Amino acid sequence: MFVILVYDINIKRVGKVLKTSRKYLNWVQNSVLEGDITEANFVKLKHELLSKINKEEDSILFYIFRSKTYSKREEYGLKKGGEDIFL
Amino acid sequence: MFVILVYDINIKRVGKVLKTSRKYLNWVQNSVLEGDITEANFVKLKHELLSKINKEEDSILFYIFRSKTYSKREEYGLKKGGEDIFL
Repeated sequence: MFVILVYDINIKRVGKVLKTSRKYLNWVQNSVLEGDITEANFVKLKHELLSKINKEEDSILFYIFRSKTYSKREEYGLKKGGEDIFL
Repeated sequence: MFVILVYDINIKRVGKVLKTSRKYLNWVQNSVLEGDITEANFVKLKHELLSKINKEEDSILFYIFRSKTYSKREEYGLKKGGEDIFL
């Protein structure tokens, strides 16, 4: 499966969340990661993230695809993060 | 076409960027919008956004799909924004 992860995390916790997410996904932009992931690893990723966030303050959004189906990715402006660009 | 828009915009400009984006797309989460859009409107949206952001400080990321192909969207934690949820 292919997932896009977008998070909005308090600065106190964002480093830990990014570090955890990068174990499984490629960093695309400041608060966006994406990548192919197995169902089992996706469960692990969610479990690890949910133990790190404060559900009253932080939010996490996953888009889940059967395969990498997007036609195109376009980026504008400042390039923050994302050493793993593979487009 | 179907697009997902993720932005990371300085707080001074984020209100304008959200307002512009919501003319064309549905607000999903703090810095995420999505929706069906015509090619012509997508060009207009990009043009309007690029005139509003500071390319040294802000970033905008589009995922572009031929159709709404994602299998699932999962959200965790705080629900910020997104009155137009239609999942």
